Amino acid sequence: MPTKSPVIIDLKFDPEEVAAALKGAFADREVINLLHPANRGRDLSGIDYAVVWKPGADLFARAPDLKVVFSGGAGVDHVLKLPGLPDVPLVRFVDGTLTTRMSEWVALQCLLHLRQHRAYAAQREKRVWRELAQPEAKEITVGIMGLGVLGQDAAAKLKTLGFRVVGWSRSRKEVEGVETFDADGLDAFLAKTDFLVGLLPLTPETTGIYNTGLFTRLSRKGPFGAPVFINAGRGGSQVEADIVASLNDGTLHAVSLDVFEQEPLPLESPLWDMDRAFITPHAAAASDVKALVRHVERQIARVERGELLEFLVDRTAGY
Amino acid sequence: MPTKSPVIIDLKFDPEEVAAALKGAFADREVINLLHPANRGRDLSGIDYAVVWKPGADLFARAPDLKVVFSGGAGVDHVLKLPGLPDVPLVRFVDGTLTTRMSEWVALQCLLHLRQHRAYAAQREKRVWRELAQPEAKEITVGIMGLGVLGQDAAAKLKTLGFRVVGWSRSRKEVEGVETFDADGLDAFLAKTDFLVGLLPLTPETTGIYNTGLFTRLSRKGPFGAPVFINAGRGGSQVEADIVASLNDGTLHAVSLDVFEQEPLPLESPLWDMDRAFITPHAAAASDVKALVRHVERQIARVERGELLEFLVDRTAGY
Repeated sequence: MPTKSPVIIDLKFDPEEVAAALKGAFADREVINLLHPANRGRDLSGIDYAVVWKPGADLFARAPDLKVVFSGGAGVDHVLKLPGLPDVPLVRFVDGTLTTRMSEWVALQCLLHLRQHRAYAAQREKRVWRELAQPEAKEITVGIMGLGVLGQDAAAKLKTLGFRVVGWSRSRKEVEGVETFDADGLDAFLAKTDFLVGLLPLTPETTGIYNTGLFTRLSRKGPFGAPVFINAGRGGSQVEADIVASLNDGTLHAVSLDVFEQEPLPLESPLWDMDRAFITPHAAAASDVKALVRHVERQIARVERGELLEFLVDRTAGY
Repeated sequence: MPTKSPVIIDLKFDPEEVAAALKGAFADREVINLLHPANRGRDLSGIDYAVVWKPGADLFARAPDLKVVFSGGAGVDHVLKLPGLPDVPLVRFVDGTLTTRMSEWVALQCLLHLRQHRAYAAQREKRVWRELAQPEAKEITVGIMGLGVLGQDAAAKLKTLGFRVVGWSRSRKEVEGVETFDADGLDAFLAKTDFLVGLLPLTPETTGIYNTGLFTRLSRKGPFGAPVFINAGRGGSQVEADIVASLNDGTLHAVSLDVFEQEPLPLESPLWDMDRAFITPHAAAASDVKALVRHVERQIARVERGELLEFLVDRTAGY
């Protein structure tokens, strides 16, 4: 029985995350991770598969026998522009897992704040049995900044859980059952929002957008008297000194942060110790490289069973 | 036109919350709140309606002409045991708010366990920045015992969040999109269940049903290697000594408990200190007295229009 073709990995992602995702993966074949210096001069001829994101300029010259190229991202615009891209099937990374994981995290954080998890944990430490006055989800308006795939999925799930939901994006989007606002409507959006959920991409316009000036424009009419800020977008969009000050002076009731200006969060950050802040280590959308690896494993298995590849890119359409 | 019958209120809830809920309620009839000292010796004969939760021992002797008794809670096990309970229609408290609050709590607990909140909190105490391998909701099968209004609502919301959901009830129920089991299918149901959610009423058959014997029949094939038990039904259905032992020996991965064999949970219970147990003080459905009052108003209006009462208790079944 012939040996199965190795798979080339050329992913300009976090090297440790890639290494972790590759651990135990592709058990039936060799993995050639080009992030590893030992593979720098490796002969790549005769290899069938490559998984690429911002690959080396000489990759396709070095690997002339590829039969399938897998994009490391959902978008393939970058890949389609690669010089020397061979005329073989190109497979997109379709990633329901990233969206649903992000929504799990957003829903969890909204429910933690709604159901006063921190206050109950503090009571428990003292063995205090006392039911707190409890608002219902429908008494809270969650305002989502960023209405792409992630924002829309989170909106739908939060609505199912009973929250009122409004949404904001730079150019206005129509989202069924959600009142939406655009750049001009930012003040109106913030004035309605009890829990602010950040799902914005990082651009020059969104850098530092979550600051005291914005927090003071959020609703203070909600059941907790002050707003909650939840960020799972990008750390560069938040001003952490303002978040700390706003928690301390009551401008914010509480926060949930998965992303930070500097990651890992520096040991000296006061956020580590603030009990009104739930924090997670950029884990909200949770290991998408692992999902990418599983997706590629599934597709290679299909090819080798003689089945058709899924998620093929239509090069004429460009996606 | 005859005067409408007064309504007796005998609810051993927080007196201020009851008084606030009664403000402006039952506008067309007198309200006799037995928490009020002035009503202590009041003649209650000839009165049609009583709304009760842990009522005075002499209530039914003092009010011999009741035509309908309304339970102040969703569970009616306590009410059914009341000495002197007259043989008249007994109405359970069913309300949208009670259902949605219960589902908020169940969804929160499932997400807390899925997203490893406890492990992240422990890392945070040590300022450790480390992403944990993270299963997705769809890798977890939540098994719900009890498929009444609460169980069906929780099932629908958990499915929206991405969990696989199966359901069990004594006599089999059809629930759209959910594989369901009946008494004979208990083993098959348990073998599929990674997270067990208890929403059963307390009856002789469900007393002590959540014990080691049941926990050992749950799935151990899920991503956490051992099952999670979440109870928001009745404390009398669980054997707490078995829960503690099962957490200690690894039969259970973790638990969330809102109800306990004895409430308030005794100070000496080991559950207060076990970090793999999330506990709340019987606050899951967050009894909303205002919603109870609206529900009773609606049912009395039905009776007086000659319509049938809703949510009648089947005394033979016990719920």
